Parts: sequence; structure tokens; C-alpha cells
Amino acid sequence: MKNQLEQLTGKQLAEVDRQFSLYSSGAVEIIPEEELKHKIAKSVLIKKPLKIKLGLDPSAPDVHLGHTVVLNKLRQFQDNGHVIQLIIGDFTGKIGDPTGKSIARKQLTNEEVQHNAQTYFQQFSKVIQMEEVELHYNSKWHSKLHFEDVINLAGKITVARLMERDDFEERLALKKPISLHEFFYPLMQGYDSVILENDIELGGTDQHFNILMGRHFQEKFGKEKQVAILMPLLEGLDGVEKMSKSKNNYIGIDELPNNIYGKAMSIPDELMLKYFELVTDFSPDQIQTLQHDLKNNILHPRDAKMLLGRTIVRMYHDQQAAEEAELRFKSIFQKRELPTDIPTVHWQGSRSITVIDLLIVLDLLGSKSEARRMIQNGGIKMNGEKILDIHAVIIIADDLIIQVGKRIYRKLKCN
Amino acid sequence: MKNQLEQLTGKQLAEVDRQFSLYSSGAVEIIPEEELKHKIAKSVLIKKPLKIKLGLDPSAPDVHLGHTVVLNKLRQFQDNGHVIQLIIGDFTGKIGDPTGKSIARKQLTNEEVQHNAQTYFQQFSKVIQMEEVELHYNSKWHSKLHFEDVINLAGKITVARLMERDDFEERLALKKPISLHEFFYPLMQGYDSVILENDIELGGTDQHFNILMGRHFQEKFGKEKQVAILMPLLEGLDGVEKMSKSKNNYIGIDELPNNIYGKAMSIPDELMLKYFELVTDFSPDQIQTLQHDLKNNILHPRDAKMLLGRTIVRMYHDQQAAEEAELRFKSIFQKRELPTDIPTVHWQGSRSITVIDLLIVLDLLGSKSEARRMIQNGGIKMNGEKILDIHAVIIIADDLIIQVGKRIYRKLKCN
Repeated sequence: MKNQLEQLTGKQLAEVDRQFSLYSSGAVEIIPEEELKHKIAKSVLIKKPLKIKLGLDPSAPDVHLGHTVVLNKLRQFQDNGHVIQLIIGDFTGKIGDPTGKSIARKQLTNEEVQHNAQTYFQQFSKVIQMEEVELHYNSKWHSKLHFEDVINLAGKITVARLMERDDFEERLALKKPISLHEFFYPLMQGYDSVILENDIELGGTDQHFNILMGRHFQEKFGKEKQVAILMPLLEGLDGVEKMSKSKNNYIGIDELPNNIYGKAMSIPDELMLKYFELVTDFSPDQIQTLQHDLKNNILHPRDAKMLLGRTIVRMYHDQQAAEEAELRFKSIFQKRELPTDIPTVHWQGSRSITVIDLLIVLDLLGSKSEARRMIQNGGIKMNGEKILDIHAVIIIADDLIIQVGKRIYRKLKCN
Repeated sequence: MKNQLEQLTGKQLAEVDRQFSLYSSGAVEIIPEEELKHKIAKSVLIKKPLKIKLGLDPSAPDVHLGHTVVLNKLRQFQDNGHVIQLIIGDFTGKIGDPTGKSIARKQLTNEEVQHNAQTYFQQFSKVIQMEEVELHYNSKWHSKLHFEDVINLAGKITVARLMERDDFEERLALKKPISLHEFFYPLMQGYDSVILENDIELGGTDQHFNILMGRHFQEKFGKEKQVAILMPLLEGLDGVEKMSKSKNNYIGIDELPNNIYGKAMSIPDELMLKYFELVTDFSPDQIQTLQHDLKNNILHPRDAKMLLGRTIVRMYHDQQAAEEAELRFKSIFQKRELPTDIPTVHWQGSRSITVIDLLIVLDLLGSKSEARRMIQNGGIKMNGEKILDIHAVIIIADDLIIQVGKRIYRKLKCN
């Protein structure tokens, strides 16, 4: 395989370079880069498409922008004639958690798996051509394994190697229990690659260990080893945690235009360029221009973020929906004409508090009776909504804007 | 269950005490003792026999005195009406070693397993009543397990718990690889107990960890937990290592009377009483008398050892064979009339050496030519056998007696 590059014509070589640089763009790590190049070269030489694997968890089928980071990468491969292999990890889903400790890992029925998979596919079709995708349910092969096969599989990996996975290492150090069955999830993922004989596996950087298991087991079973392409994890709307449904910091690609646009507007400024790079169809050149204009104050961050919002809505709906969402956002939020210099208060108290206590704690009003009167007179607003119930409990959220009368504003920061 | 002892009549209570003290005799550890007592009490109360499990490795079916330590214990249970469950671990045997690294763990065919099992049973019948024993091959249930069941099983144990096994702990500390499949052997042994629902599992102290797995899994599967009875390991003829075929320090119970007797005579004096206790049918009282007589020079150690030899031959052959073996031994070894004061040399050199070098190293003859002449003249004997070949290579063994001419003797000690 090493000599494949030498057999290529100049034109073919340029094609290999073009594809290699395309697939590398945005990736955090390619393991190993040389092998990716050789696999592309072989594919160009013998005109055989590469097989690109992506594993999917059947228990959480809501697709959000975080997923589109890898989907966009898959689309690049597909656009160049390669074959996408989507694996629904339904075997694990059907087993559930044998210790019964994880609520998240509840047992799924066949119907739930099918339904969740359809939910994925319907959403994925907004990014990739689903009719050209290979679909696999890994229960097909895992359910056929007997104890003897499992022991054979387990004989191909050491305990020490499994212990290297970050979370196992950490839990062992902290003396937190690791149930033996947990060692099998990376094995299953690795064995999927043995069956699929894929050339490449895509995933987020958090899949580093599991994807390398695919290389390991393919080699142990005498197959050509897959290349790992690891994509960055997209931080969610909070700007801190990985975007996920459970953290409620996500933009679902199936959401309504107004929701997508509004959520996009809440992204922290410093993440804007990363979002343009990873979840929009902007070219590297376009992103460079944006970066330049922001840096030199040619483009206001607010306008850039509105462009991001429009772009995402356009991608998952259309241009018209994007413009309408922007108009609606402007009419509701910008017409409120909030002052631009609202004092920010760093909130460190409880996340739920009665409206009266909140006003007193923030020193916005002098007494509880004064606060009560102000509420009853409609003088207190939270995020623009009048609070009329003197017993109302306010859930503190980041960027909550509190208005007292016509002129007093406070903005809360929780982090 | 705790109140079972209270429900017993005085006579029943005495019976429980009698059995408890019988089964405890010679055991290194009973885990836990209280539960054994309660299980016996329950059995006496409701007249239901206990089930006593013993696991057997189908790859090494030669039964030696080391095995009879647990067999004798099983016999005690059988004599009191309890049921013996012998488990042939054929599932593991049929798999072999998936890493291919262990030569000892070669894959066995069905025929080999059957043949080895028959070899066991034929030999066991000298100690226990085989017609009253339950026989089980664990492949019966293990071969039916699917991946899903294996994960369920693995979900019931933590990695840390498995790591506690001495050899795993040691290898991990030394960074020697542990293949993941090795974690399954204790699981299988534990799962055997889940299926068998045995009350007690017997084994040597080296089975401590594995037998406790039976308790662990029975509990996890909602069954009553087995009690572990751990018997001492019998040192072999070398007086150091555990008796085993691979160390060639064993007395096989199927050996000819003369071999058994001769090997018994080579046991180090200090192990004699342990042998009387663990592998003969002597009662504790008889053993106490022996101990007393030896201590007070009423009994000569050589005579005690001859009693041991006769006893073992009698147990595995008959009284007549025992007497004949002793006569033959006396005629061959004692009639040589070795002096009683042979000087002992502690040998620390190579275990194989030419006869000439040996004579020189021991300073028994002055030169190689002298040694050669002496050999050719028939003046050199090893253990009473003339050495006539001047190129002979002597394998050094403990208690090797070297005779030069009529008067010079040396006895080698290797430990």
C-alpha cells in the first residue's frame, strides 16, 4: 500500500491532495494521517469508494447542531463518491443497563429502536443523501454471538488497554466502581468495524478511545485498519458544556425557524466563529473574511450573530424562513429598546427565589411592602414580561433582565 | 434461618455439632463458619441433604494424593447422606486459550473431555461412592449463553473486585498483560454455582477467590449463598511445592503398589504427620498418638514412614499389596545395608552433570583418570546402581546416594 502514491499520475495526485485537505479541514486529529492519504490514493487509483463509518446511539434521536459537525464531514465524503455506513447501536440499547443503575440506559424495544432510527434518518436527510447511505443495526451480528465468541473477542484485548480510557482510569483512581460489562461497549464498537470492514470511522474527540478500538480489533481479526477522524466537540449555547439534549443547551435541526434563530442569538460572542466553521456551509475563505471584519470593527458582533442565525435557519429551512425569523426577532427583542448599558450582577444565590426576595436581595427596592406594591402596579418585568403575582417564584437564568419601573435595569450573570 | 438452631432438640443439636466439627477438621478456612452451622442445622431439621460442589479441570485427569485432600472431605459429607456435585469445567477446556499463548490450555475435543472425565471418575471411585454423585458438564449451560446474557453476568461484578485476585493484582503491578477473557474464568465458576444451587463449595486454598465468586453470583441472582470450605494444599515429595503432575512430585492414586510405597518413603520427615492427617484414613486420635510417639522417640521416623507407605498402598490397593510392597522395599533398599551415618552434601550446582565431574567436584577421587578407572572397575554406584559408562550424565535428585568403592558414601541434599 505504501507505494500507491508513486503509481499516481500528476492529476490523480492533485485529486488525492484535494480530498485529503478537504477531509482534514476542521478535524482535531487524524489517526494516522499517512494512512488516510494512502486510503484516498488507493480509492482514486482503483476507483473504489471508501467506506466511512458513523455509530449512532439509538436512545437519543434528537439531532442537534452538535451532530452536524460530523454529518457535514460525512457529506464531504459523500460528495466525493464515498459510501457512508451508519450503524445504529441497537444491541446495547436493547440490553439496557444490567446493573439497573443508569436511568439514561433504559431498555429499548424493537419498535422504539426503529422509531428512533427513523427519527435520525429523517433529520439526517437535511445534511446527507440518505438514499445512498448503508444502514446497519449492530444487533444483527452481536445477537448471534455466543459465550464462546465473546471470550474469543475478549481474548484479543488486555485489561490494561481498556483501563486507559479516560473515564475508566479516573473512576479506578477515585475507587468508583466500574462494572465489568462496561468494558464491553468499546469492544462492541470495535467489533462493528470488524464486520463492516470500513476504511474510516468518524466521531467527536470524546470517541477517541472507542474509535481506536475499531483499529485494534480490525487488526486482530486480520483486516485492514480503519483511520480515525476526530472532530471537535461543539460547545452548547452556554458556551461551556458540550452541546447535548440533556444539558438543554442545544439547537435542534428540526426546531422551528424562530427557535433556531433566537437560540443562535444567545450564543456567546467568542464561539461565533467556531459555529461558522463547524455548523454552517461557509467556506474557509468566507470565515476568514468574517474573522478579519470582526477584528477590525468593520462588522458588529451583533450583526455577525444575526448572519449566523439566518444561515442556520436557511440551512435547515430556507432563505425566506431565515428572513422572517430575523424580522420577528427584531420586532420583539430589539424594539424593546433596552438601554445598552444595563449593569450586570453576578448571581451566586439560589436558582429559584420569590420575586419579592429577589428585588430585596438585589437592593432594587427598600422593603417588601414597597416591592409588593410595585408588583401589583405592574412595575416589575422579568425579560420583558410583567410579573403580577406577588408570590411568583423566579427561576434564575443567565442573562435574566430585571426591570423596575421605567429606568432601573439589572442583568444577571450566573457563571 | 438464624433461628434454626433454636428449633433443634438436644439430640439434633449434638448431631449438628458432630457434623460441623467433622467437616471443619483439617480445613484451613470456612467462609463463613456460622453459615455452615446453619446449613447443617437446616439439613438436620428438615432432613434434606446438602449439595456439595467440587469443580474439576478436564485437562489434567491424573488424580494424585493432592486431590484426595478434598476427596476425603467429600467422602465425609457423603457418609453423612449429603449429595456431591462434581462439575467438569469442559466449557473452558473446549474453548482453549483464545490468545494462543498458553500451551497448557490447549483446546479439547468432546471425546477428550469425556475420556478425561471417565479417567477422573474411575480414580475417584477409590475414595467416594461414584454411583451417588451428581455429574455435571458446565458446557451444558455456558454454551447456551448469548452475548446479552454474558453482559448481564458481567454487569453483576466490578472490575475492582476481579482485580483483587492475587495473580491479577500481581500481574497488573508488574505491568504484565491480563487478557480480558481471563476475567471470565472466575465468572464461569461463579455462574456454575448459580445453576447448581449448591450449599457448599470445596477447594484448596488456592481456590479462595474463585469459590467466593460462587457466593457473590448466587447472591446477585437471588439464591442462597454457598459456604466455602478451603482445604490445605498438600506439598509434594520435594516437601516444597504443591503436589502436581507438572512438578513431578506426586503420588498418583492409580500407581502400582511398589511405586506408591517407594515414593511415600521419600517424603521429608517433617511432612509425615501432615500426610497422615490429610491423605490417610487415620482418626485424629490415632494421629495424636503417632505425634506423641515420634516426639518421645518411642517410634522411629523410618518406621512411621513405613506405616504411612503401607497405609496409602492399603487405601488404593489392599492390605496384602501393602505388605508386599514393604517387603520388596526392604529387600532392595534396606538389605544394601547402607551405613547409618552417610555424610550429607548440600548440592548447589547444576542438576545434570557427568559422573566423572561429579566425583571430582565432590572431591571423592583425585583425578579424572582415577575416576575413569574406578567406573570401569564397577566401583561407582548411584542409589545402589553401578555406573559403568564413563560418559554417563547423572541427574541430581534429593537424597541421591553416591558410593565410591566399599566404604565411601555421600548423600546429596538439594534444598
